[in-house]
Parts: sequence; structure tokens; C-alpha cells
Amino acid sequence: MTDALQPNGTIALLTDFGLKDGYVAAMKGVILGIAPMARLIDITHGVEAQNIAEGAFLLQSVCPYYPDGTVYVAVVDPGVGTKRRALAIRTKHAYFIGPDNGLLASVVDAARHDPADTVEIIELTERRFWRPHISSTFHGRDIFAPVAAHLLADVPFEALGQPIDTIVPSVHAPPHRPAEGVVEGSIIHVDRFGNCVTNITRDDLVADDPARVNELHVELAGKRVPGLYTTYSAGPVGVPMALFGSSDHLEVAVPNSSAAQWFGVTVGDRVRVVLAHLADTNVKRAPMLPKRVQG
Amino acid sequence: MTDALQPNGTIALLTDFGLKDGYVAAMKGVILGIAPMARLIDITHGVEAQNIAEGAFLLQSVCPYYPDGTVYVAVVDPGVGTKRRALAIRTKHAYFIGPDNGLLASVVDAARHDPADTVEIIELTERRFWRPHISSTFHGRDIFAPVAAHLLADVPFEALGQPIDTIVPSVHAPPHRPAEGVVEGSIIHVDRFGNCVTNITRDDLVADDPARVNELHVELAGKRVPGLYTTYSAGPVGVPMALFGSSDHLEVAVPNSSAAQWFGVTVGDRVRVVLAHLADTNVKRAPMLPKRVQG
Amino acid sequence: MTDALQPNGTIALLTDFGLKDGYVAAMKGVILGIAPMARLIDITHGVEAQNIAEGAFLLQSVCPYYPDGTVYVAVVDPGVGTKRRALAIRTKHAYFIGPDNGLLASVVDAARHDPADTVEIIELTERRFWRPHISSTFHGRDIFAPVAAHLLADVPFEALGQPIDTIVPSVHAPPHRPAEGVVEGSIIHVDRFGNCVTNITRDDLVADDPARVNELHVELAGKRVPGLYTTYSAGPVGVPMALFGSSDHLEVAVPNSSAAQWFGVTVGDRVRVVLAHLADTNVKRAPMLPKRVQG
Repeated sequence: MTDALQPNGTIALLTDFGLKDGYVAAMKGVILGIAPMARLIDITHGVEAQNIAEGAFLLQSVCPYYPDGTVYVAVVDPGVGTKRRALAIRTKHAYFIGPDNGLLASVVDAARHDPADTVEIIELTERRFWRPHISSTFHGRDIFAPVAAHLLADVPFEALGQPIDTIVPSVHAPPHRPAEGVVEGSIIHVDRFGNCVTNITRDDLVADDPARVNELHVELAGKRVPGLYTTYSAGPVGVPMALFGSSDHLEVAVPNSSAAQWFGVTVGDRVRVVLAHLADTNVKRAPMLPKRVQG
Repeated sequence: MTDALQPNGTIALLTDFGLKDGYVAAMKGVILGIAPMARLIDITHGVEAQNIAEGAFLLQSVCPYYPDGTVYVAVVDPGVGTKRRALAIRTKHAYFIGPDNGLLASVVDAARHDPADTVEIIELTERRFWRPHISSTFHGRDIFAPVAAHLLADVPFEALGQPIDTIVPSVHAPPHRPAEGVVEGSIIHVDRFGNCVTNITRDDLVADDPARVNELHVELAGKRVPGLYTTYSAGPVGVPMALFGSSDHLEVAVPNSSAAQWFGVTVGDRVRVVLAHLADTNVKRAPMLPKRVQG
Repeated sequence: MTDALQPNGTIALLTDFGLKDGYVAAMKGVILGIAPMARLIDITHGVEAQNIAEGAFLLQSVCPYYPDGTVYVAVVDPGVGTKRRALAIRTKHAYFIGPDNGLLASVVDAARHDPADTVEIIELTERRFWRPHISSTFHGRDIFAPVAAHLLADVPFEALGQPIDTIVPSVHAPPHRPAEGVVEGSIIHVDRFGNCVTNITRDDLVADDPARVNELHVELAGKRVPGLYTTYSAGPVGVPMALFGSSDHLEVAVPNSSAAQWFGVTVGDRVRVVLAHLADTNVKRAPMLPKRVQG
């Protein structure tokens, strides 16, 4: 299988716990008690509380930049204490530990769609790698953190539990094409600058004619955002623009301002892209989208 | 005394400095200049400004999860620059460095109540382990950080200053029992999810009859919160509930919402627990508490 | 030149990226892929979005506390993707990597004003030390992070690009003296406690008569703040005061409260200091400053 992959010593944490409480620090303490040399990295603990979809996006947006063998612990876990399963996943590149609620589904999907990758899934059942007392509200500390640390401390991946095939699928509806030249998706993250990141990637748009991908406009909250820019500073200050952000997802931005505030939109709101050279006139003249459809 | 304890290489920091300024980073720079191999962990820097009681709670809630030999530096220090003393404390398990203002009192109390533990207290007086110039506003950087680093760099605990016995006591009034079957305490922390953590622990409630601890209700802000649940998701969405949180403190939560907002309460507000099988009818019919008594 | 300086293994990051997104984590992943043993420190990621002046202040306020050989990566970069240059700087004490937009100018100025220091500036042009694909929106991840990591991985400073002499100057107007005994400056940072840090340092005030520096008052937002205190707790609770903060910059504070809220001021607002023993009566009676002049 993936016999070459070994943990590289880094455990990267993503949660919705925030930083004002001691929850993240408790997880780190548990890890250091088992694997004192672990290198601990915070991906973010600012996922919106219980927003599994946003957590999944942020996790996936960061993974490509880490070296092989990184162990990710992801905890956005509204069902903690219920019968939802606990997972460990190994691809050719990394390990992922977290609840079975869709948070890790996009990682599995991506690995399964890549012919050069592999994916193994374990349901965590071996309690000897957990803390002795399992609280009903904090599996991040009592199950996920110690399991990650034991991986660094030479426990084989296979020893953590039982292999399974099927997990809870992704929360996101992927972008779709309701008509020729039209792609519909949604906002999956609003970043610190108010940029609205969508689930529409460059790949979703270039399939037809890569050379003409720039001839598009975006519809958001009933307004039309002009075509594709290459940098934030290429557009006029204070005027909405669309561009591919640093993770190749389509973003709507307002240079030197917050697009989320400008449009009054948030995570879950729908976005439509119209590719001018493909869409016929009727589609382009279609009534604007209602502001909020999902979420 | 505690001859076996050695620093384990980790310095864990808790302050009310926040993360937008450079204060925490300045402390870390000072530490790395003295102990370049120190492993630096942030417990939290989001303690409410100058809230000694909240800092004490968060420190104590995290310590049980760290390996022996961790050096904690805790700085919530409204009296910085006055004559308040500076402390180093050693128990059988850990070192604690910080101001003598009640912040470290609960750590000392806990160690003194545990027959298997020991506690030694030093007033920091040896200026050779401080920075050469001591500002009057930032002892975290000029005294506490370098002292912690020197512990890692093989300075003996005893060399840091003069042994003392008595320190400023804890800010918290502990929970008390105004009547049979009634326990009164207060909110000591509102976490990121809006859960209201009280200073009432499982031990405060189970003394009489462990098997019946679930037969209780909580009174908060003039409202009655039904009995004890085991997980956040066990209660109906949007309806207040009481449970023991991950540190075995009684919490009031509202699943998928913020209990602090729901009740309009904050740190310091009073909470009353009524144990149904112990309290007589008159107590249960007593008028509800006024919303805010302390804090 | 500075032949003795070697990277000490620490990379210290300062950005305006915040902590809720994955941007900082992506930079750290890139670094760990090149220099797995790097010690990663966060100075702050809470610089106000695109506020170069605040970023420059926070960077300079922290540097004196770090050991020689620290590599600083500073990214507050509204012009990312335009022709603004990318820089690496080496002084006798440290390395600095970031955009050429004024963010690093005060570091260069300080080194040039110190006869015992040296400064070398490189424009980053050697693409082999960057990531293979350079996005137009995230040079922190694609250029600055990998360059810093390569310094730790034994790439010589000189190999990073072409030596240059002149960079974009500092954004700040330095404090000036419009009249005898009067010093005018501005607020360059509001810290977590609401303390208003100005660009006026102790050196700006003591030149004339160090022994009488305390005989001053500060004018802010049309109000007069009484003379110099030594600690926050030396002044009455809730009453504005002026003092030198922990980085020897003049601050206006309100003990146990927020001076920024009390005065309704923010970064960029003007501050005037009147040295009583130097200023003549007319100056002291001059009309108060309008609240906001720059920023």
C-alpha cells in the first residue's frame, strides 16, 4: 500500500475551538505527553463554530503546501458524544484524524480521484491509544490528539482500529452547470479581508476553452461583477472584481474593502458565473439570482 | 523535596495580552535568547483584560493534560510596576512563574490539598536572572520570561529568590451551600461557543449521593435550566441545558447557540444548583436569583 | 561585511493575514518543506489589513528582544502582484524578508543610523529559491516563505538576488517640533487594552533636559492629558494618563479602560506634547488640535 509514508514529526491542528479558551492547549498537552518531540502547527482554530464545510475547505486549501508525512488533526464536531464514528485516514502523502461527519470527505474524494494516490480509512476503535477517561464533549483532547501522537510514537496506522470503506460524504454540493456557459456554486469561505471564496475552481471554468476563461462575469446577490482580474490591485479601489485566489478558487473581492460587506453576503450564498463566449443571449439576460439560496 | 522534577523543555504561556500586539512575541524572543531549544506553547492570550479569576481558571483547566516538568508562565497583571511580588512555584509536577495577585493561588491550593503533592514558593528577587532594564509596565518580558528560560538553562529553582509561605489568595469565592440540596457558585468563563462554565465541579455535587446527581436543575438569570445531560447534542437545538463540561465543571449550554447571549449573562454572574432529591419544597419554590450579584 | 551572522534557526512571521484563514499555515507548510527543523514564531498576524505603518512599528518593537540570526518574514502587501520589488535585508543582527513598500524601511533606517551596525539589501530575483508557480495574490507563500527557508537551508544571502541601495521609504512622518517645547506626532498603534501608542519616543523628549521630562502634558482629540506617570496603576482608575510604554514610546492610557474608546481616536490621529518648562505661555494656550489630521 503506502509502505513508504512515515510521519514527518509535524502535527497540524484545525478546529473551531477559537483561541480564547484552553481547548487547543489541552490537545497540545496530551500530544506532548505521548510524543514530546512533536512539531505542533496551528492551521486555524477560527473555523466558524460547527461549520463543517468551512473546516473542510480550509483543511484542503492548506494541505498541498505541507511536506509528505504530516499528520492533520481536524476537529469540527457538532456530533461529539453521539454515535458518529472517529476516523484515521492515510493517503500517499499524509495522515488525517477526525470525526466522520463530512469534514474529511473532500480529502478522501481528492485522493480517490487521483490515479497516482491511494487512500486507506480506519475507524478508530482501539481504546488503548485514547486517554483513559473519554469525556462526552471533547474527543479532540481524549481521542484525536492522543491517536495522532501515537502515530508519531511509532504505533502503526493499521493498529488504530478497523478498516472501513465508506464515510459520511462531503457537506458541499459541488458546482454544477445549469445551462451552457453557466456555472453555479456557492461561497464557502469569507477570509479576513472580506474576500468571498467560492467552491468554483479554475478547473471548473477552463474545461471548454482555456484561452477565453477571462471573458466571464460573476453574478452575486443580484449584482454583476466584471470579468477576471489577475491581482487585487489590478482593479479600481472600492469596485467589486472577480479573480482566482491563491488556492485557484474563484473569489469576489473589493480592493481595499470587504466584498462580504459590500454585497451583504456570507458563507453558503450562491454565486453564478457566465462565460460570455459560451452562454447565449437569453441566459445572459436571465433574471439575477435571489441573494441567498442555501446556507 | 521534589528532587526528581526537571524542566521538560516546554514553556507554556498564558496572558491577557491578546495576539494583535507584539507583547507575546517579545516574551518569546527573550526566552529564545536564553534557552534557544525551548518548546513554546500558547495556552491562551485571550484572557479578558486584567481578569485574574478567568486566567486562574484557564491555567488550572489545562495543566492536568501536560507532562511533568512543564514550566508555566502566567501573566495577568493589573498591578505591574507596583510592589506586588513576583513568584516562582514548584509542585511535584510543574513550575509556575507569575505575579503574586491570586493568579497562581488555585494551583498552590490544589497542591496543598493533595497529600501526594508538594509545593515550594519562591519570591523572585535575584535580578541577575532578569533582563538588565526592568520596565515598569511589562514584567512578563523583563522578569517572568527570562526566569522561566533560566530554569530551562539549568539554573536551580532555589537560586531564583527567597522561599516564602504565604501568597495572595484566590479571587474566587468557592461554591457554597446556603441550604440543604442547594449549591451556589458563579460563572468563571464564557467559552468561544458561548457555553457558560461555572466554578461548580462534579465533586461539589456528588458528595451526597452520586447516583442521583442527575436529578438537579440549575437557576441562571432568573430562569430554570433542566437537569443534567451528558453531551451537547443530547439536548434539543436552541434549548438551554446543563452538563458537566470537559474539565468536569458544571456548564450551561444552548446546543447550536450561545448560552451567554441567550441568558444575557457573563463572567461573575451567579448560578444556583438545586438537587431535587435533597432540597425541600420551600427551597425549590424560593424566588429566583437576581441576575447579577458579583463581578 | 557581516561574515559572522548565521541564521539561528528561528523564522519569525508578521503579517496582516489574521488567524481565521489558512494563509499563515500555508506559509509555514512551505517553510517546513524546505527547512524541516525551522523554529516558527508568530510575531503577530493581527496587523490591521494593509496597514504598512502599523506593521513596521510592530516589527521594530519586537526585534530588540530576539537573538542574533533571527530571520523575519514580514508581509503587509497591498501591492502584491504589481511591480513592487521583493527584498531581503541583512544587518549585523538579523535577516528581513518582505515587500519593498516601506514595511522594512525603519529597520534599514535604524541600522544606517547606528555606526556599529551594517546593512545589505538584496532585490529578490533568483526564482530558483521561490515556489515553481507564483500566484499573483500570495507572495508570502510563493516567494517570501521559501526564500526565508532557503536561508536556513544554507543558501548564502548573496545568492538570493541583486544588491540594491535604495528602497521605498518609511510611511511614517517622524515626530517634529513646530515650536519650542512642543513635539507633534501621531498614534501608530492601538494595543489590545486600548492604549494609544505614539511615534514619539523618550529620545524625542529628553534631548533638552532629561531631568524635567516629566513636566509635560499631552494633547489628544482636543483634550489635555496630564503629565508623565511611570506605571499604568500609578494613575486613578478611569482617568487618562500619559506614560512611556514598554518600548519607550509615549502612550496615552486610561487605567482599567480603553484610551482609544475614551478619546474616540485611532491609528493615524495626531498627538501633541507640550514640555511645560520649555513652552511659552502662548503655545500652551494655543487652540486645541482638531481630532484627526492624518490617516
